[in-house]
Amino acid sequence: MKSCFSSVYSVVGEPVSLSAAKLLKASGLDPVVLEARDRVGGRTFTVQNKEAKWVDLGGAYIGPTQNRILRLAKEYGIKTYKVNEQENLVHYVNGKSYPFNGSFPPMWNPITLMDFNNLFRTMDKMGEEIPREAPWRAPHAEEWDKMTMQELFEKLCWTRTARRFATLFVNVNVTSEPHEVSALWFLWYVKQCGGIMRIFSTTNGGQERKFVGGANQVSQCMARELGDRVKLQSPVYRIDQTGDVVVVETVDKQTYKAKYVIVATPPALNLKMHFNPELPPLRNQLINRVPMGSVIKCMVYYRENFWRKKGYCGSMVIEEEGAPIGLTLDDTKPDGTVPCIMGFILAPFKLRRICEIYSKVLGTDEALHPVHYEEKNWCEEEYSGGCYTAYFPPGILTQFGRVLREPVGKLYFAGTETATEWSGYMEGAVQAGERAAREVMCAMGKLQPNQIWQPEPDNDEIRALPFVTTFWERNLPSVDGFLKFLGVSTFLSAAAAAGLVAYKKGIIPRS
Amino acid sequence: MKSCFSSVYSVVGEPVSLSAAKLLKASGLDPVVLEARDRVGGRTFTVQNKEAKWVDLGGAYIGPTQNRILRLAKEYGIKTYKVNEQENLVHYVNGKSYPFNGSFPPMWNPITLMDFNNLFRTMDKMGEEIPREAPWRAPHAEEWDKMTMQELFEKLCWTRTARRFATLFVNVNVTSEPHEVSALWFLWYVKQCGGIMRIFSTTNGGQERKFVGGANQVSQCMARELGDRVKLQSPVYRIDQTGDVVVVETVDKQTYKAKYVIVATPPALNLKMHFNPELPPLRNQLINRVPMGSVIKCMVYYRENFWRKKGYCGSMVIEEEGAPIGLTLDDTKPDGTVPCIMGFILAPFKLRRICEIYSKVLGTDEALHPVHYEEKNWCEEEYSGGCYTAYFPPGILTQFGRVLREPVGKLYFAGTETATEWSGYMEGAVQAGERAAREVMCAMGKLQPNQIWQPEPDNDEIRALPFVTTFWERNLPSVDGFLKFLGVSTFLSAAAAAGLVAYKKGIIPRS
Repeated sequence: MKSCFSSVYSVVGEPVSLSAAKLLKASGLDPVVLEARDRVGGRTFTVQNKEAKWVDLGGAYIGPTQNRILRLAKEYGIKTYKVNEQENLVHYVNGKSYPFNGSFPPMWNPITLMDFNNLFRTMDKMGEEIPREAPWRAPHAEEWDKMTMQELFEKLCWTRTARRFATLFVNVNVTSEPHEVSALWFLWYVKQCGGIMRIFSTTNGGQERKFVGGANQVSQCMARELGDRVKLQSPVYRIDQTGDVVVVETVDKQTYKAKYVIVATPPALNLKMHFNPELPPLRNQLINRVPMGSVIKCMVYYRENFWRKKGYCGSMVIEEEGAPIGLTLDDTKPDGTVPCIMGFILAPFKLRRICEIYSKVLGTDEALHPVHYEEKNWCEEEYSGGCYTAYFPPGILTQFGRVLREPVGKLYFAGTETATEWSGYMEGAVQAGERAAREVMCAMGKLQPNQIWQPEPDNDEIRALPFVTTFWERNLPSVDGFLKFLGVSTFLSAAAAAGLVAYKKGIIPRS
Repeated sequence: MKSCFSSVYSVVGEPVSLSAAKLLKASGLDPVVLEARDRVGGRTFTVQNKEAKWVDLGGAYIGPTQNRILRLAKEYGIKTYKVNEQENLVHYVNGKSYPFNGSFPPMWNPITLMDFNNLFRTMDKMGEEIPREAPWRAPHAEEWDKMTMQELFEKLCWTRTARRFATLFVNVNVTSEPHEVSALWFLWYVKQCGGIMRIFSTTNGGQERKFVGGANQVSQCMARELGDRVKLQSPVYRIDQTGDVVVVETVDKQTYKAKYVIVATPPALNLKMHFNPELPPLRNQLINRVPMGSVIKCMVYYRENFWRKKGYCGSMVIEEEGAPIGLTLDDTKPDGTVPCIMGFILAPFKLRRICEIYSKVLGTDEALHPVHYEEKNWCEEEYSGGCYTAYFPPGILTQFGRVLREPVGKLYFAGTETATEWSGYMEGAVQAGERAAREVMCAMGKLQPNQIWQPEPDNDEIRALPFVTTFWERNLPSVDGFLKFLGVSTFLSAAAAAGLVAYKKGIIPRS
């Protein structure tokens, strides 16, 4: 039984712990990373093979305002490329395909348009009230946390079209259902990604780019830099803080000792560890209450990029009862080789079913003849518990949220779930890892408390453009408002007509 | 490192694993119980000391229809006694105390009465649709699972009084909030306990009795019978099913080998174990999604049983915004010694605050002068995760419920959460433990599959009386129905009046 000593340990993989360890090492400390899996990168996972060349079966997309992960990539010379959005996107609804441009499918029915516009405008407005770093302090925190997103949609939406699209919006962004998630949490989630447009857009949004060669490279480069400080296949099962140093034991029967430990797993995976002394009650309850989303990422490969020829870029927004897939993106390599469509599915489906829906949406049988298929069911990963991120069911964020990042003795907590910008994304993972590393440095007296949280300068090359809202987007009434307006104007017209009659009848004195 | 071999292991304590092991041993098998704590009994916990004599700080109450736990207790000669309900109960609402008799406080306002009556009648009716053994197969399963109990209350209740009491009803029965739990799950929970009256009543209900000497004795007697097959302080952190036998490793560095393993923890505590191979995706997701309730059980001791002198039995139903406690019961010993009030609180409060509310409700300063205090915060227990039981947030039961009891290779699942009668109670724990033991025996060819589930004969001494509903309880309209009736009768009166006028005016021809 080997026992080794180090100043700081960062426990369990993800890019989080690596970014923490990298910063600690750069500061002259001596970190060790204990990674449960046989690979680094956590929820990023790049596979290389003959058919796909390389393919990201986990976290893949980056975009403007994600400056920390872009900084790391730049440092390692990892290039990005734009996800193809040259041709038309396509919205499939009521069995028909409608090509469109921009982030959201356009609505032609004026009632639907008002409803849709009001829903997303309201969600962004509600988000403005919610502090990124402490959503439980929002003025309406309690009220919104007691509601599921489904309840909020029922309150806000007048049309089935808007409610159905809103469901897809939740599914795609947090891989869970509107009735499962707290409204406060989801509104916070969208807000801390920069709002509705930023989170959902490809161009100028969270899905603008991918890394040439795969997202996992960032973790691999950090791991290379850290060398044998990274211990693979080392799931931690025990953390003992009763002595002067923290004793960490792994399933492969190694014992590690450290002055501080950064626990860089999703909150629920803290449960994989037995703690001595026990965790405080609130943390013990929190980690039981924030499950991971459920998603299967699937990539269908074709001989030819037939959709581009038909004027489609490969982005499909699919609304159909029982359809296996809600959103796709082109995953062809930047040089145009290895034509591929990427889709997220929430439950297992046969490849045939997936190809069938692609064929219907793209209007061609070519979609029925894939040449290769890759998928990754994140629900089966013991050391992820699901993907992309943890979600908060109703009531949890206000009751337990405040202990998300609260240290317990010499334990500090990272994980993208603890981030305040792009939590749930690679960017959030880096923010969290670096913040936790600075917390440790602060505890060691190497930093001031006000240096723990550091803003990140904007990336030089990948710049965020503001989303310009039109006059109508800002001023179009809600359906509710429109109906009231109609009511009032009917009343006014009636009043005016009555006035005219009265005037004519001489009841109102003529001046 | 010790390694021992046994035919069956029952992993991690609770009365569940003991009852499983007891049955296996009685069938000539050779079980071992691996208990994480330094004591047996799990969520039952009896403390003995000078001041309290003995006190149940965990599960304590039993009642008619809980025939399995009563059978075990009888076998070991453990006596029961009735919780005191001789004098009046008291309902404290709007700052006033109202003495009453029976299970529920009476309502004097006819609108409130109708609302209240309709709410509970409807909940029982909805429960009738829900199969005990498969709530996900209820005709309205999907619809009800997407709703929280708060949403259901909003739909059913017309008055604030009913909504407020309904909240207390959820708090007290499942130690969580109406906005946290799935309506399908809560309706199922009440149903499988025998309905609204059975679950909530003291006399003739789930709280009718306690064990003389404490509830933990049942586990202690079973443990004594099992002798050194029960290993304390043996938290399991690893279960390996890749070989011919299942290999189980504990934090105290012991290795056990077995043909079969019964995992008898609350579902979420499966997460404390590292599995090889990984658990199937649905189970991996389930155990992340069913948190334990939050409760602190607190006992306030007094020199004198002053409430009985005032004509109160000690049962208080307390409705006040921000009050620390919603429900109390007399916890005086059966011989009248050690006067005590037991209360459940959902979050930590100072003893002073608790005594203050008792003083207000009972209308005497005597309540301000306790002589002793005991409390147990179940939220801090690493190996419980909370109490009394796991709850299902919206959307989980229909998606993941069906794998609750589904074996994984040589692993079988017990825990009171897997029961179909009095799940969440000691009774459910025994049902689950014995059922899992029979599943193992069936796998070994010692039992037929149709012998796995066995009904339990009624207890001879502690008999269940039917709850008789009155004509009014069955036939009183809902507020909704009443208003419609008013509307219709207004219309009819108006029509009648109009008819009379018409008749008088000769519009309707006289015959």
